[in-house]
Amino acid sequence: MDIIVLRPDTPEEGIRHVLKKLESKGLKATISQGTERTIIGVIGDTSKITEEEEDAIRAMEGVENVVRILKPYKLASREFKKEDSEINVKGNIIGGKKIPVMAGPCAVENKTILMNIAEKVKEGGATFLRGGAYKPRTSPYSFQGLGEEGLRYLADAREKTGLPIITEIMDPRDMDVIIEYADIIQIGARNMQNFRLLLEVGSVDKPVLLKRGLSATIKEWLMSAEYIMSRGNQNVMLCERGIRTFETATRNTLDLSAVPVLKKLTHLPVVVDPSHGVGKWDLVAPMAKAAVAAGADALIIEVHSNPEEALSDGEQSLKPDMFAQLMKELKPIAQAVGREI
Amino acid sequence: MDIIVLRPDTPEEGIRHVLKKLESKGLKATISQGTERTIIGVIGDTSKITEEEEDAIRAMEGVENVVRILKPYKLASREFKKEDSEINVKGNIIGGKKIPVMAGPCAVENKTILMNIAEKVKEGGATFLRGGAYKPRTSPYSFQGLGEEGLRYLADAREKTGLPIITEIMDPRDMDVIIEYADIIQIGARNMQNFRLLLEVGSVDKPVLLKRGLSATIKEWLMSAEYIMSRGNQNVMLCERGIRTFETATRNTLDLSAVPVLKKLTHLPVVVDPSHGVGKWDLVAPMAKAAVAAGADALIIEVHSNPEEALSDGEQSLKPDMFAQLMKELKPIAQAVGREI
Amino acid sequence: MDIIVLRPDTPEEGIRHVLKKLESKGLKATISQGTERTIIGVIGDTSKITEEEEDAIRAMEGVENVVRILKPYKLASREFKKEDSEINVKGNIIGGKKIPVMAGPCAVENKTILMNIAEKVKEGGATFLRGGAYKPRTSPYSFQGLGEEGLRYLADAREKTGLPIITEIMDPRDMDVIIEYADIIQIGARNMQNFRLLLEVGSVDKPVLLKRGLSATIKEWLMSAEYIMSRGNQNVMLCERGIRTFETATRNTLDLSAVPVLKKLTHLPVVVDPSHGVGKWDLVAPMAKAAVAAGADALIIEVHSNPEEALSDGEQSLKPDMFAQLMKELKPIAQAVGREI
Amino acid sequence: MDIIVLRPDTPEEGIRHVLKKLESKGLKATISQGTERTIIGVIGDTSKITEEEEDAIRAMEGVENVVRILKPYKLASREFKKEDSEINVKGNIIGGKKIPVMAGPCAVENKTILMNIAEKVKEGGATFLRGGAYKPRTSPYSFQGLGEEGLRYLADAREKTGLPIITEIMDPRDMDVIIEYADIIQIGARNMQNFRLLLEVGSVDKPVLLKRGLSATIKEWLMSAEYIMSRGNQNVMLCERGIRTFETATRNTLDLSAVPVLKKLTHLPVVVDPSHGVGKWDLVAPMAKAAVAAGADALIIEVHSNPEEALSDGEQSLKPDMFAQLMKELKPIAQAVGREI
Repeated sequence: MDIIVLRPDTPEEGIRHVLKKLESKGLKATISQGTERTIIGVIGDTSKITEEEEDAIRAMEGVENVVRILKPYKLASREFKKEDSEINVKGNIIGGKKIPVMAGPCAVENKTILMNIAEKVKEGGATFLRGGAYKPRTSPYSFQGLGEEGLRYLADAREKTGLPIITEIMDPRDMDVIIEYADIIQIGARNMQNFRLLLEVGSVDKPVLLKRGLSATIKEWLMSAEYIMSRGNQNVMLCERGIRTFETATRNTLDLSAVPVLKKLTHLPVVVDPSHGVGKWDLVAPMAKAAVAAGADALIIEVHSNPEEALSDGEQSLKPDMFAQLMKELKPIAQAVGREI
Repeated sequence: MDIIVLRPDTPEEGIRHVLKKLESKGLKATISQGTERTIIGVIGDTSKITEEEEDAIRAMEGVENVVRILKPYKLASREFKKEDSEINVKGNIIGGKKIPVMAGPCAVENKTILMNIAEKVKEGGATFLRGGAYKPRTSPYSFQGLGEEGLRYLADAREKTGLPIITEIMDPRDMDVIIEYADIIQIGARNMQNFRLLLEVGSVDKPVLLKRGLSATIKEWLMSAEYIMSRGNQNVMLCERGIRTFETATRNTLDLSAVPVLKKLTHLPVVVDPSHGVGKWDLVAPMAKAAVAAGADALIIEVHSNPEEALSDGEQSLKPDMFAQLMKELKPIAQAVGREI
Repeated sequence: MDIIVLRPDTPEEGIRHVLKKLESKGLKATISQGTERTIIGVIGDTSKITEEEEDAIRAMEGVENVVRILKPYKLASREFKKEDSEINVKGNIIGGKKIPVMAGPCAVENKTILMNIAEKVKEGGATFLRGGAYKPRTSPYSFQGLGEEGLRYLADAREKTGLPIITEIMDPRDMDVIIEYADIIQIGARNMQNFRLLLEVGSVDKPVLLKRGLSATIKEWLMSAEYIMSRGNQNVMLCERGIRTFETATRNTLDLSAVPVLKKLTHLPVVVDPSHGVGKWDLVAPMAKAAVAAGADALIIEVHSNPEEALSDGEQSLKPDMFAQLMKELKPIAQAVGREI
Repeated sequence: MDIIVLRPDTPEEGIRHVLKKLESKGLKATISQGTERTIIGVIGDTSKITEEEEDAIRAMEGVENVVRILKPYKLASREFKKEDSEINVKGNIIGGKKIPVMAGPCAVENKTILMNIAEKVKEGGATFLRGGAYKPRTSPYSFQGLGEEGLRYLADAREKTGLPIITEIMDPRDMDVIIEYADIIQIGARNMQNFRLLLEVGSVDKPVLLKRGLSATIKEWLMSAEYIMSRGNQNVMLCERGIRTFETATRNTLDLSAVPVLKKLTHLPVVVDPSHGVGKWDLVAPMAKAAVAAGADALIIEVHSNPEEALSDGEQSLKPDMFAQLMKELKPIAQAVGREI
């Protein structure tokens, strides 16, 4: 059901034009003529009205506003599927009572460092190992990741620790090689609306962690999830990682209210990345706790054994002992909200 | 210590001009002439350089940037006072181990409703009663508050329940009457940079709750606290209540990372208002929990016995039983972070 | 006419509750029951539904959204008054074919400097003299203005040059003295929602220049104009001066699209302040030209004879010769859009 | 030249650590020990310090801030190349005295419509034909473009009208086919930080129009230009198309101050897209005029012969006669700023 608001000066012909268009879609309309506005209520399955048709109606003479009542996403919507989705990755459930934690370095730098971190985060209580082999960097002169070599190191670390791995894809042409190694494929914030890449991960049989774009509304984010799901892959988790605002005291503004908002709108699991959200290691622990208290289904945290030597994002990485300490401190909070960690 | 960056094309005369200015302030300068930039390091008590002098230096020919190293606020700064400030309001400490909760209606509407809510929030575990007698409303046609009558009702409710009261001031001309009734004076978000009002509350002997402006940076917010403190009143608490961003799923974006950031920068207590932060009652509980987990020193929450009949902000008010339930659920989280509630 | 959207799970009782409320206001309702949403169309003079009643309806169980069709402002609206408002200040029309330019220093510093600047901007072609006697400064340690002494200097400058003066009010308690001197009263960006101050300037017989708040939507800005007009003073002009965004290359982001948007929504004149909008003197000229091309009715520009010595905002001030040059360059642009300067 | 700010509590060892790191890069350091901060000035070619090394320094104990003096982009910088770059596309110069206008539909829908529009915009005075064959759409259920078929229609239209064509690339895998048809390749706002795509267009011999990301700072935007240029392709033009802010009255907020800011920072031509910037056809003309007045080197404007039937962005498209009218009205403004159109 949709609503079209017309100004009093709308020509009769304009109204007829709108009505004919609706009819051609098999939709019915009720007209309420007020003194100041005329309102057309559209009855029937208005999800048939596409985005471009909505735009076209907006472009018509006399049309002041089009109010869409139904959400533009379906598969991702809580109305479509009432119960929480659980994603099973090699026996680890994301979206269940237990809150899994994905930890590791921002970028895979070399085998020794990665192995060391992997063992440390495993000891600390992590359930997944994170690490980037392909890195989106704002500068072309920065370290861009080890590529497939990095993926092999991740696989080695998985073999040693038993931790499934999550790693980022940046280019559809890397799909074949990434799929060979990754347990969860990550779509980074800068690619949240790289629609071709979304369609690509929608066509494979691997869980996807979809990070929120820097200035993406929750609605746009869910539309990007819908892109993936529309291709068949239903195993999508949403990861809040901070949005861009005017505040510069933190790298981004971690929007924790997105967690309960998403829990209302969608059945998909919600992950929080406090490391990118704040960008400073000493703010990570309080925000990780807040994320759990707000209802997050999982966390993803940067850990590096030697942040001062990290090739990427050292500023926001926890050292392994801080990570282990944080994991302990998260336990009673998880319990307080009926979860486990 | 400050730094002035000059472009290579800066005329010699310009550099001499800057140096003379610094000398006249009793400051010394070191010059590092690089091939691409010249850098003047200013040594001495650079806090003597006022904002307007900084602007003037920026306006000079050849000056590319001025980097100020010291923070522009002093009294509010953690460097000035290392230990946490505690504010004692009739025996209730804000900034101590216990987390006080301020609860009540957005606006005082009439005596019966207020009394009823006051008793309910007291039962639920609140330590302060909140309620506005003077209300900032975006529309001139909206309910603007009962004024002094409202203050009297608040005083009656305090007498009955023993809860000290917090209420908002909007106009320096109301100071005399507000001071007669209020235990804590609130400066609303829209008045965070009403500098005259800040000076006014700085001159009285009542604790002040200073809400963050809708688009205020943390630095500007602390400068507004400094305004109050510069007049003598050191009992200032800072209240995060959401900032304005592009996201419309929530009324504002509650910036919980401001809590640990402030804990680093200032000794003043930090309060969180989840009700205004999100604007929807069903998001209040998760965000209140997250606020406590993030390290908030106090909470301020809207409670109304009949939100559908509220004259202001009904959409974001908890009913008394939900409030009582929330208070119970907050206890283990407070405990998990070494606090009590 | 308004629309209320209900979820399918809304209890019958909830719907009856809403209907009774509407009836009590003398409003009629049409109900369209769809499979996914129920929509209540409200017929009659829905402007009777206040902001707080809207909030209350939103707070009801089952209510998903309330869509208000009519604008919340009336007196300021183009629907209320079709033709452009012209404000006559001592024979100078704001909102007519000619584009007046208000120029002068940010703050009045001393008589000699002010006199000098006033004569220079007069020569350059300005029609008003701007200058602040009461200055809102983010730091309590910055120059706060000369107060009444500054107003006297402005009056002296007016006498000498014949330029009417515009100056800012920050505190309702200064009204008597300001009204004695000012030809136009300015409400600064930080006071756009200082509602008490708005009511105060609404009650006097002086034109008001209302600056846009740092993060004010155009709707909120028009509501603030409505505050002033609701008290009787219809001589309000709106001044775009840049909004706060994530971009730090400029002091603010000058939202020039606000000019044509306002021209559609309101009959009030639209002024642009490129100096505060960009915060750097070398960006002022291109943005002043763009403002005229976009349809601005007037400009307000900072000019200082010696920006490096200015006590406020030197960085964004033009020198008098640059100002005179700009005035020449603006002429053909004004002509190109059917105006004069 | 860079500056590192250390807190007074920085361990001696930390300082030595930083110094050793700098030495290993062949850089020298000067230390100024103040009472409140210690400042390390880094002398030498600090462009050798990569982003990740900067991050690592920030991660060190005691480090409060790292201030980078030099810009992180080189090839794109005005310091690297003083004179304006001109891009020659089949004899049409972008970045010269004449302001070319790129016009056409948002998406290529079918051959007849495209041919019609192409002829109309040619008549109206356009110098390039725009049209998308691959369309980024927020919904997977929206029209995604005709693909290669669309490119063929564009080529047909070029043949008929002589207008060179500009069209968007979304996926590196489409490069071969796009390069066969396009005269200018467009990178859309959502792909501004699709770094792989940037590298790809950097490797081909076609001019690139790089749109600003929705929440990209000017610095990040120039870094994306640098990505392209670092691969060899120097023919990059930057296109302002509106940024995301809190304001909802327009689709985006067109940041026209970016035009003069870019003119200072870079030698690359600056294009403005008023259609996407405002999102409403009746705001396009005033903003196109403002763009020219602000110094834009080119415009890109959506034109559709039948906006109500457009499959994409009809709301913001001009009809051909309005476009022709606008072109006429732009002439005197271009002239007023020393340009031609």
